[in-house]
Amino acid sequence: MLSRRGFLGTAALVSASAVSGRVQAANIPEAPMMDKATMQPPLHPSSGPDYRPVVTLNGWSLPWRMNGDWKEFHLVAEPVVREFAPGMKAFLWGYNGQAPGPTIEAVEGDKVRIFVTNKLPEHTTVHWHGMIVPNGMDGVGGLNQPHIKPGQTFVYEFEMRNSGTFMYHPHSDEMVQMAMGMMGMIVVHPRDATFRPVDRDFVFIMSTYDIDPGTYLPKVSEMTDFNMWTWNSRVFPGIDVLPVRLGDRVRVRMGNLSMTSHPIHLHGHHFAVTCTDGGWVPESAQWPESTVNVPVGAVRAFDVVADNPGDWAFHCHKSHHTMNAMGHNVANMIGVSPKDLAKAVGKLAPDAMAMGSRGMAMGDMEMPMPDNTLMMMTGRGPFGPIEMGGMFTVMKIREGLARDDYSDPGPYEYPEGTVAHLVDAPAGQAPRQGNPKKTDQPDEMKGMKGMDMKGMKGM
Amino acid sequence: MLSRRGFLGTAALVSASAVSGRVQAANIPEAPMMDKATMQPPLHPSSGPDYRPVVTLNGWSLPWRMNGDWKEFHLVAEPVVREFAPGMKAFLWGYNGQAPGPTIEAVEGDKVRIFVTNKLPEHTTVHWHGMIVPNGMDGVGGLNQPHIKPGQTFVYEFEMRNSGTFMYHPHSDEMVQMAMGMMGMIVVHPRDATFRPVDRDFVFIMSTYDIDPGTYLPKVSEMTDFNMWTWNSRVFPGIDVLPVRLGDRVRVRMGNLSMTSHPIHLHGHHFAVTCTDGGWVPESAQWPESTVNVPVGAVRAFDVVADNPGDWAFHCHKSHHTMNAMGHNVANMIGVSPKDLAKAVGKLAPDAMAMGSRGMAMGDMEMPMPDNTLMMMTGRGPFGPIEMGGMFTVMKIREGLARDDYSDPGPYEYPEGTVAHLVDAPAGQAPRQGNPKKTDQPDEMKGMKGMDMKGMKGM
Amino acid sequence: MLSRRGFLGTAALVSASAVSGRVQAANIPEAPMMDKATMQPPLHPSSGPDYRPVVTLNGWSLPWRMNGDWKEFHLVAEPVVREFAPGMKAFLWGYNGQAPGPTIEAVEGDKVRIFVTNKLPEHTTVHWHGMIVPNGMDGVGGLNQPHIKPGQTFVYEFEMRNSGTFMYHPHSDEMVQMAMGMMGMIVVHPRDATFRPVDRDFVFIMSTYDIDPGTYLPKVSEMTDFNMWTWNSRVFPGIDVLPVRLGDRVRVRMGNLSMTSHPIHLHGHHFAVTCTDGGWVPESAQWPESTVNVPVGAVRAFDVVADNPGDWAFHCHKSHHTMNAMGHNVANMIGVSPKDLAKAVGKLAPDAMAMGSRGMAMGDMEMPMPDNTLMMMTGRGPFGPIEMGGMFTVMKIREGLARDDYSDPGPYEYPEGTVAHLVDAPAGQAPRQGNPKKTDQPDEMKGMKGMDMKGMKGM
Repeated sequence: MLSRRGFLGTAALVSASAVSGRVQAANIPEAPMMDKATMQPPLHPSSGPDYRPVVTLNGWSLPWRMNGDWKEFHLVAEPVVREFAPGMKAFLWGYNGQAPGPTIEAVEGDKVRIFVTNKLPEHTTVHWHGMIVPNGMDGVGGLNQPHIKPGQTFVYEFEMRNSGTFMYHPHSDEMVQMAMGMMGMIVVHPRDATFRPVDRDFVFIMSTYDIDPGTYLPKVSEMTDFNMWTWNSRVFPGIDVLPVRLGDRVRVRMGNLSMTSHPIHLHGHHFAVTCTDGGWVPESAQWPESTVNVPVGAVRAFDVVADNPGDWAFHCHKSHHTMNAMGHNVANMIGVSPKDLAKAVGKLAPDAMAMGSRGMAMGDMEMPMPDNTLMMMTGRGPFGPIEMGGMFTVMKIREGLARDDYSDPGPYEYPEGTVAHLVDAPAGQAPRQGNPKKTDQPDEMKGMKGMDMKGMKGM
Repeated sequence: MLSRRGFLGTAALVSASAVSGRVQAANIPEAPMMDKATMQPPLHPSSGPDYRPVVTLNGWSLPWRMNGDWKEFHLVAEPVVREFAPGMKAFLWGYNGQAPGPTIEAVEGDKVRIFVTNKLPEHTTVHWHGMIVPNGMDGVGGLNQPHIKPGQTFVYEFEMRNSGTFMYHPHSDEMVQMAMGMMGMIVVHPRDATFRPVDRDFVFIMSTYDIDPGTYLPKVSEMTDFNMWTWNSRVFPGIDVLPVRLGDRVRVRMGNLSMTSHPIHLHGHHFAVTCTDGGWVPESAQWPESTVNVPVGAVRAFDVVADNPGDWAFHCHKSHHTMNAMGHNVANMIGVSPKDLAKAVGKLAPDAMAMGSRGMAMGDMEMPMPDNTLMMMTGRGPFGPIEMGGMFTVMKIREGLARDDYSDPGPYEYPEGTVAHLVDAPAGQAPRQGNPKKTDQPDEMKGMKGMDMKGMKGM
Repeated sequence: MLSRRGFLGTAALVSASAVSGRVQAANIPEAPMMDKATMQPPLHPSSGPDYRPVVTLNGWSLPWRMNGDWKEFHLVAEPVVREFAPGMKAFLWGYNGQAPGPTIEAVEGDKVRIFVTNKLPEHTTVHWHGMIVPNGMDGVGGLNQPHIKPGQTFVYEFEMRNSGTFMYHPHSDEMVQMAMGMMGMIVVHPRDATFRPVDRDFVFIMSTYDIDPGTYLPKVSEMTDFNMWTWNSRVFPGIDVLPVRLGDRVRVRMGNLSMTSHPIHLHGHHFAVTCTDGGWVPESAQWPESTVNVPVGAVRAFDVVADNPGDWAFHCHKSHHTMNAMGHNVANMIGVSPKDLAKAVGKLAPDAMAMGSRGMAMGDMEMPMPDNTLMMMTGRGPFGPIEMGGMFTVMKIREGLARDDYSDPGPYEYPEGTVAHLVDAPAGQAPRQGNPKKTDQPDEMKGMKGMDMKGMKGM
């Protein structure tokens, strides 16, 4: 059983330590302890039930204040600068200084009043995706309310009728405003604190951008050919790690407001989706998963028991979504001699990463790049280059982690003899079904340079 | 319990009122009361069990006649002109004068005989997707039957073994013929009228087209870059609304024969998928949803209790799929001065909508456009422009609607004080995590025009 | 109840007959009975529990040897030549002479030692997707282990903790190496042979390639515009058929390491997904399906009772995925006169299939094509051209097939009167909702050539 009082203490600790983790990882400015304008503490919870707060990757939960029975929030839609990872910033639109906006966190049954101030150059609205609200609070501009003009503040009032995981985003010039990064998550905790409690509760939202190398603005009419695949508008190696205590029950809530589904894969564990933007999935209906496919315009939360210690890759399984900016129509240079390659790259693709003549792994090599561009594949681990980007981070499961410690525990210390390692090749020929006869090989292949042809020689 | 006799009466009323709704909404020619060629009533049900008929958005159910024990249908594959919405027509291939073809509706256990006449310029077949039929009736040209040559009529005979929701489409030059619009839905009602009955039952199928602005023919080899995202080959604001009585149990059956999944989102409600093209989903396996992701080559039907009155947006959640024709590689002009923008658009994208320098919301502005082209974002609601297109319509839930009234009830009348509205901004500074320091701003950003920089000034 | 001893006999028979089926269908070199290098029998099972082995479409299961308590396998990563179908070969990277690599088959609880030798020109690793392994065996290069350099052999050791269906692939220059074909399936049989036993058990993995007509190398940076949609790097008509005895309980296990989901449709049956890469789906959670949508980075296995005899199409339902190489931005020539078409094709698309002026079905016509290119639509059945390609094959369900016979039984013999057939059109006018009035037809349509306009004349 959870001590209700314990929650609030936990919350405070979580915030403090999560923040310090974030600072280390991403150099993100932190929440102010005082409102500089009023020199008062900013909007803070002053009452209400306790709950274990969520940890928003590279983000934060929106403070509120009580006004009678109402929990009051204030969202400000405005242009922001978002750092995707050290070395690249983007000009986006978001809320309260960040894209995505802060997580709105409340409790089932809360009556909420949300002020929305529009500091964008065009009109906007906010739709509360998945929430059961009165029709006039649903936020579809033109249909359910007037659009909010630049400079105006609108107020939304409704009850948080259902616990679960939801999203907010504009329903006004929607394609453009979401392509510019306007979105955020909503977490409504169950009033009954014993309903499916977890030890750690993470949340993020997925969005994608098409930003030409060296530039800062997303191309808002792009439909499929994105080059920045983000979690909370951050990319690897700029995404917070998920520090978890061995044995913790962990929830990860993921929203998707991009243009394609993202199959999110956690290594080393099996788990189940427990919550969608429509509510809690009954146990009888849950599937065992190793990869959770998150459709567009949907939320998936999964619960996992972190019983396998180590540093576990956690990423989208579309291989292009774990890369940073790259061209998608570069010729394959595998098999081309390095000299020809250099010429070809110089002529044809001066602003793109070149495909190597022996694949693209480059180990520790670095190339000159345009300003404000991330390496296509990057990141380093204890064993060398990780060669990832985009929607990739690591769940770090450690024995003995303090319950409220969210700081990065550093690399995992592998017990002796538990890491795949170099050996002599086993004696004898590896089993194979046989290879095409030499005469089956097209002439083009025989003369190929830079390609190890030994595997072709059959047995 | 439902009165069985009541069904047929309901059916007739449904047809009449749905038709009048359709006429208003979409200016579609309606079903003839008499066959003009024979001056006889057309093929009509003359016997068979009662059921509550489905309402096909912007479409109709195929009449039949009894011939002994057999229910006889007649499909004619042929070129058609389809109006996507007022202002744009397309040259498609379909059935019986329309694309998609009419809904085939029958009852579990029915023996059906379906004549298929080919009036296309090339051969075709019909496959009954999801139905358990004898192998020779399965419709795969070359494999299970000869292709049906132009001018020929083939006959298919099988029993409707399972109730559920299925599809029909060619399996002969399949990619081209589906890209030209050839498809339709099949609804087989349970013989037991007490099995999961609903009060209203809607059906549509999703297809996508790539039609250059000002032209009429889809490009049949397009794989991903479509510009017309349709429900029953109609786009907003040309798609029928779904009028529903408050408290009704409503079923919506959706088929997808496009090239990508469509996550269909209904506002203001939670619900569950109850039926696929493989049959009825057991209650134990149902997930709560706010968005139903419909895969390609699949059917999803969901049941929802319409307990929340108002006008609820109902749409695909891929933001580009609620837009009409647009280019997808237009540069983002946000931050560019209007004068430069006009020049750029004139030179580079004479046939495309221009991105505005302050976003794309244009309110009531209209632009000159080529013939046979729809506005990218369009539609008006009681509060102004809705700024949508494509796969978007509205479920209109009203108290006191007559059980069989499917006419558009007009805009919702919001109870006093239930609409998000203009207020003064709350006192004090909105909570924010802080902004990048001025020195963090790239030089490029400082000089940007047309972008509200106030949000950047920190606290 | 299954006789445990019976399994091994079955296994041998399965191998022999499946092989003969494969040879007929695809002219694939078969597994050697002797290792040519050592002139010893190759790595073979020498002990361990019995199970019904899976049949890998156009592939094989990796032999092993026992070494004390350990089951030892040896994977060799290397360049390979893969024939997609007769007439087209590709230069890929794979394992043990083939792409995809052989299926790794084991039993729940097995302790396995897997040697991985790298004969590629760049470093690699192997990740065991969906398996619960110690962190140092998880295969993420840089994070969990050093990359395996060219020429090196690494060893992985772990227990097969869970039965189910998993995958293996590199986690090192991952995008490139998967785009080059490096992947394979892992099947772990339950230790309890009575757990969900099936009579036939098929397995394949899906990958996609972008190979210009007349060339041999995939373009490894392509993200969406692939032209080769493969099962086990084979395309129709080069994919093995699935021969099945009437009444068999059949399992089909499908992995997806491409860049988009594949909705796999089996005709004539309903079935359910029973296993994912996260384990076995409980019965209470299973959905009835006619199409199984397989997300990227995921496994879906479905169980079907083959109770409907005949030749059943089995394919991806994205219509472009059942085509072979084609351009995706060719103009639609429907309605253009054949003479103009010939000119246009000659000028604009010399290396692409031309769209016909009356659709694309060409029946038995053949066109001159560049070397190493497959027909866009191809294959012949007993009733003529099947007009398919890519991810398409046939499940052949036959009465009286020997339990272990996996050879192609040839075309289905249809019982008299069970095939859709030519008839006279039914008397009277087919029901239709009416056509647009002549005056509604745009001028462009009136003058169109090559388009049957009869259907337009209304009633």
